[in-house]
Amino acid sequence: MNARNFVGRVLAAVALAVLLVAGVVPAHAQQAAGAKSKVVMQVSDGDAAKWNLALNNAKNLQADLGAANVDIEIVAYGPGIGMLKADSVVGARVDEAIGAGVKVVACENTMRGQKLTKPDMLGSVGYVSAGVVEIMQRQQQGWAYIRP
Amino acid sequence: MNARNFVGRVLAAVALAVLLVAGVVPAHAQQAAGAKSKVVMQVSDGDAAKWNLALNNAKNLQADLGAANVDIEIVAYGPGIGMLKADSVVGARVDEAIGAGVKVVACENTMRGQKLTKPDMLGSVGYVSAGVVEIMQRQQQGWAYIRP
Amino acid sequence: MNARNFVGRVLAAVALAVLLVAGVVPAHAQQAAGAKSKVVMQVSDGDAAKWNLALNNAKNLQADLGAANVDIEIVAYGPGIGMLKADSVVGARVDEAIGAGVKVVACENTMRGQKLTKPDMLGSVGYVSAGVVEIMQRQQQGWAYIRP
Repeated sequence: MNARNFVGRVLAAVALAVLLVAGVVPAHAQQAAGAKSKVVMQVSDGDAAKWNLALNNAKNLQADLGAANVDIEIVAYGPGIGMLKADSVVGARVDEAIGAGVKVVACENTMRGQKLTKPDMLGSVGYVSAGVVEIMQRQQQGWAYIRP
Repeated sequence: MNARNFVGRVLAAVALAVLLVAGVVPAHAQQAAGAKSKVVMQVSDGDAAKWNLALNNAKNLQADLGAANVDIEIVAYGPGIGMLKADSVVGARVDEAIGAGVKVVACENTMRGQKLTKPDMLGSVGYVSAGVVEIMQRQQQGWAYIRP
Repeated sequence: MNARNFVGRVLAAVALAVLLVAGVVPAHAQQAAGAKSKVVMQVSDGDAAKWNLALNNAKNLQADLGAANVDIEIVAYGPGIGMLKADSVVGARVDEAIGAGVKVVACENTMRGQKLTKPDMLGSVGYVSAGVVEIMQRQQQGWAYIRP
């Protein structure tokens, strides 16, 4: 086998492997190869209609794609933090979404600003130190972004 | 020609070709090479001011870039579906945008939820089964996302 | 050194270099290699609470990541243009953000539509001809997008 044939044959396998391992080809490019869809959803409005819309969106994504085929993360911050408080009007729906595999996280910066602590929040939610940083980093990792 | 020189010369051509053909390099990377700009716009508010803003945005994108150089898709869902109803206050502007080459689609999930059928909608619009899935997939394909 | 070993060793270096130089690997993939984070933030609501939220978001991004590690650009257009007028209720905070390294730009299309000229605006802000085009292009360049 001469060098030209050799390079031709190994490039498809090796170049992809190298780039993927090196983290240089972004996640959404990997999605093109059939991997899981990934969506980060932002809730930053203090508006129960928006909270319900975000939960509807998550439900539709799972219904259409199959829950096993899509990672969904809802990040609540700013006035949106009310969605995840223990007395939230959508608390039952948030618990249900989490039970269905949706990741739901509250912004600790916002909580500090509003003097909220974990006992003030729904027991089922997770936490991130800064909601806006989380949303930015998810996009950098190739996640799609939905702002209901 | 020794192997080192050979690899140096063919990598630029072959690696790119392989990655592009394999669909591994995402669409917006291909845009960097001078291809068409692509933008998906979300309309999910039941607010005529937002509908007009989305239509203004589309118009400005076409004016600035040239209509032939940008693909624009407006996806209306949730409370935004009213933008595309037959009695929409912006119906004439929607028709005009579609005439100018903007793709405008309504979410069938939302329509079902609001007991709307195609005769209730503007005759010019298209349809997608789930607006939020469409928006996610466009981003996965490398489209920019604007949420007016 | 045989050809197989040679290709294995040079691919990591050469393939990446070629793709980066060719502009084929998008900016956010380059970010994965440890470069600066980049975020474009949209302000298109005529709502001072949203203006403050955008400024809070910028502050949190800088606090969490270190101001030297993140490029932030706030683009105000449509009803959001009020954020950057000389009489803006958040004028002092806008000046402060710009002093802290945040780029803040007003949409000249919007200004024309509202008969605003540069003397009507805060002295510290910059300008882009079309806010929506700027936001689209930043995403094409690999910037994350936040719409507070």
